[in-house]
Amino acid sequence: MDHYIEPIARLINELSRLPGIGGKTAQRLAFHIIDMPREQARQLARVILDAKEGIKYCSICCNITDSDPCSICSSPRRDKSIICVVKDPRDVIAMERTRDYRGLYHVLHGTISPMEGIGPDDIKLKELLHRVQNNGVKEVVMATNPDVEGEATAMYISRLLKPMGIKVTRIAHGIPVGGDLEYADEVTLSMALRGRREM
Amino acid sequence: MDHYIEPIARLINELSRLPGIGGKTAQRLAFHIIDMPREQARQLARVILDAKEGIKYCSICCNITDSDPCSICSSPRRDKSIICVVKDPRDVIAMERTRDYRGLYHVLHGTISPMEGIGPDDIKLKELLHRVQNNGVKEVVMATNPDVEGEATAMYISRLLKPMGIKVTRIAHGIPVGGDLEYADEVTLSMALRGRREM
Repeated sequence: MDHYIEPIARLINELSRLPGIGGKTAQRLAFHIIDMPREQARQLARVILDAKEGIKYCSICCNITDSDPCSICSSPRRDKSIICVVKDPRDVIAMERTRDYRGLYHVLHGTISPMEGIGPDDIKLKELLHRVQNNGVKEVVMATNPDVEGEATAMYISRLLKPMGIKVTRIAHGIPVGGDLEYADEVTLSMALRGRREM
Repeated sequence: MDHYIEPIARLINELSRLPGIGGKTAQRLAFHIIDMPREQARQLARVILDAKEGIKYCSICCNITDSDPCSICSSPRRDKSIICVVKDPRDVIAMERTRDYRGLYHVLHGTISPMEGIGPDDIKLKELLHRVQNNGVKEVVMATNPDVEGEATAMYISRLLKPMGIKVTRIAHGIPVGGDLEYADEVTLSMALRGRREM
């Protein structure tokens, strides 16, 4: 951080810890922030804190929400007999964009990954099993990403749920293998949802 | 901002106002911030405020600083008879990186641009004239960017300073024309500095 005065060096340092923000971009952003009107900079700092501290997790589906239960879990228009299991809150948004799915969600907040030391107890799996046991759930759609961890997690959960008499399905490989659910286009995701098969 | 809950929508909105941050990147950053440890998110918000509110401007050279006068203006090892005029604080950092220049700076905080309604009174030009009149300044190096506004500003200032008996020079066009001083490499900038000619 040559020649930078202390407050700027620290800002550049924090910004360059964000994903996809390298040194040059962090510098550019830092100087942009310094040139901002004071109110806009305060606003930026405030929304960062609000987003981090004002967010709750739905006690039913574990999705991020500003009210508990979340708007999807508490909606009378959603089909409560079907639960779509996804890795993280972004995937709920991706699924909602298809306007094709009218059931509920369950957000795992991760996938089982022995390589990274993430086991079944580190994701919101207990919560899913609890939901499935106590409510009239007929089908669970596994919509984790089609990568190694996502497939393994889907397989693991499927083996737990099937003995409970639940129909477990997997979204079709309409999504390019190795791709990211979050960035799939709506049509591909719709296709993947329609082509789901029992596992 | 479909389907996003309020605090996230606002965060994405603020982030996407930053330069070079589009909608997708803003989403990615927002979700990264939500997943951050609480202390890191607070730290990010704090350094944004600190950088914006903890920064002063040097009363001599108008550069951003944490002490007044800045470390360059108050250094006994700098040659006080030569002033390098730049557009903004980033350019001071770029010049310092050459380790080739031992004089002082003057930061204009902009360039004259009639198209954008920025006139001579909107940049720190009065302050420069004041410095030149009252101190033993022998040479002013115009190091504004080699673009239309930068050239016009250099020309304008040169015409004001020359009748005062000051030697006015322009850094050489070693920097690619249309390029940005901030991103020039050290060698090119050194060359440009050495090849400066009287204007």
